[in-house]
Amino acid sequence: MSTAHAATNGATGVVNVLFAAADRRWAEYEEPLTRAFAAAGVPAILARDMPPGSVDYVVYAPNSPLQAFAPCTRLKAVLNLWAGVEDVVHNATLTAPLCRMVEPGMTQGMVEWVTGHVLRHHLGMDAHVTGQDGVWRTGFPPLAPERRVGMLGLGELGTACAIALSRLGFDVAGWARSAKEIDGVATFQGPDGLAPVLARSDIVVLLMPLTPGTENLINAERLAQLPKGAVLINPGRGGLIDDTALLSVLDAGHIAHATLDAFRVEPLPQDHPFWSHPHVTVTPHIASATRKETASEAIAENVRRGEAGEGVLNVVDRALAY
Amino acid sequence: MSTAHAATNGATGVVNVLFAAADRRWAEYEEPLTRAFAAAGVPAILARDMPPGSVDYVVYAPNSPLQAFAPCTRLKAVLNLWAGVEDVVHNATLTAPLCRMVEPGMTQGMVEWVTGHVLRHHLGMDAHVTGQDGVWRTGFPPLAPERRVGMLGLGELGTACAIALSRLGFDVAGWARSAKEIDGVATFQGPDGLAPVLARSDIVVLLMPLTPGTENLINAERLAQLPKGAVLINPGRGGLIDDTALLSVLDAGHIAHATLDAFRVEPLPQDHPFWSHPHVTVTPHIASATRKETASEAIAENVRRGEAGEGVLNVVDRALAY
Repeated sequence: MSTAHAATNGATGVVNVLFAAADRRWAEYEEPLTRAFAAAGVPAILARDMPPGSVDYVVYAPNSPLQAFAPCTRLKAVLNLWAGVEDVVHNATLTAPLCRMVEPGMTQGMVEWVTGHVLRHHLGMDAHVTGQDGVWRTGFPPLAPERRVGMLGLGELGTACAIALSRLGFDVAGWARSAKEIDGVATFQGPDGLAPVLARSDIVVLLMPLTPGTENLINAERLAQLPKGAVLINPGRGGLIDDTALLSVLDAGHIAHATLDAFRVEPLPQDHPFWSHPHVTVTPHIASATRKETASEAIAENVRRGEAGEGVLNVVDRALAY
Repeated sequence: MSTAHAATNGATGVVNVLFAAADRRWAEYEEPLTRAFAAAGVPAILARDMPPGSVDYVVYAPNSPLQAFAPCTRLKAVLNLWAGVEDVVHNATLTAPLCRMVEPGMTQGMVEWVTGHVLRHHLGMDAHVTGQDGVWRTGFPPLAPERRVGMLGLGELGTACAIALSRLGFDVAGWARSAKEIDGVATFQGPDGLAPVLARSDIVVLLMPLTPGTENLINAERLAQLPKGAVLINPGRGGLIDDTALLSVLDAGHIAHATLDAFRVEPLPQDHPFWSHPHVTVTPHIASATRKETASEAIAENVRRGEAGEGVLNVVDRALAY
């Protein structure tokens, strides 16, 4: 299947798909993508190298060496391997549609991680996990309906997490740039909607995309709007938070704890104060990941749609940057 | 409302409810119970002391000094404050119906605790919570559909937990003494049904009642039937497990971790090996508790049913001991 020779044929009906990502991704994805294209009935030629002028679609990781898209003169779409597109969306050479990754494996993983860490903080688990000292400290947290969770970002991931938490009984409010309706979740939107959500969030979860509009959104002013003792959970993007402001409210005790999975620089440098802060839990960008089987199916389905004239899904609005 | 004098009147239509539990429970329950009886339209006289011959119902904690029920000649039912009845069910002086506590607050709390600890183990959270050493250790657990959870006990609490875990995507099987049907959960029953559930449980949760039939059920033989690396979570009763057998399989590495909330002796003595075992998390019987508001409503509703001739709910089968 995956030979560069076949790709140059330009045979009628054949779809040339360039895989532009790291070596280890090719090792992961070659098989499931090949299977997924076959299952979707797409006669794809999948390869890591082909003449730019013959490329129909690019399966893409933004850290790939491919940065100049202009030579790909018949490019129909770029299919990003990750949900976040902040490292490709400003590439002016890319004029074809850019698609975010939306696939059920990534959504499922995010729901599990967010639900788990919300429950961890809600139940005060850490005191038990780290306090096996023989002292019987009883005491009960409030039930979930008395715990206010704020979900910032109501895209595919934020919406799924808000629904899961609401089903478990939490009192969930959500905020997004534009108006959303979610059963069982109080929703707020736009610049004026943020403060009321922050003010009622015992636990706040960040699942916004990183855009010029959301960078450093969680700054000193907004952190101060959270109730005293609130917990911050960030499985989104590091750049959403002003790190210095966060450290300051943690030191002041206004924010009780931050569980952070995404950082401006990854891996988070060993000497970063987050690692040693007693009220910060660092997790190594594991909240969720594209899962190769379901992601391959999502990519193949999007290419099938493109070829069938149904239009590709999850196209990024380049002006909004997500 | 709560005077012993009124209780002796025997006025027509008045229901005499004796509260037989510790002082601190009276402090918690006097107000919500009084409100709940009023809301249910039950003209109850609620008191901590009344002539035995005038008692219609007893709100009861098994550690109360009241152990001889024979003098309560017109007793209609005993309403236990907890879900577990093992410390009263064998009291031969009690011939009136004995009701287990079933109330939504306790169920909700148990769902939160069980879901939280299943996710904690599923996601491998402890490694991050206790390992903030600057080392970026990435790696992803399987998704919930690839994680097999076994729920032993499918009463009110086990069923609610099984449903919540199944909704989150876990591959849940359940086991109970008698046949049960739960949407999305594979169910097994009786002595022959236990081994297949154990054999497929990456995470096993104990929510059976403690009865002569379940005491020490989780012994060396049954622990050996779990897959290597399984995790045991016990929010049920301490007596369900043979402690020595559990320590032995933990030491051997057959069971990776045990999170235990209930013990034969509580508080768990400081020198008990569970406290210091690196693969045991002790929590101080906090998995769930009767919540005074919702429990008072459940008690008032049961008394209302009794008085209306509808029959009280959640009556213990004395032969089965739960």
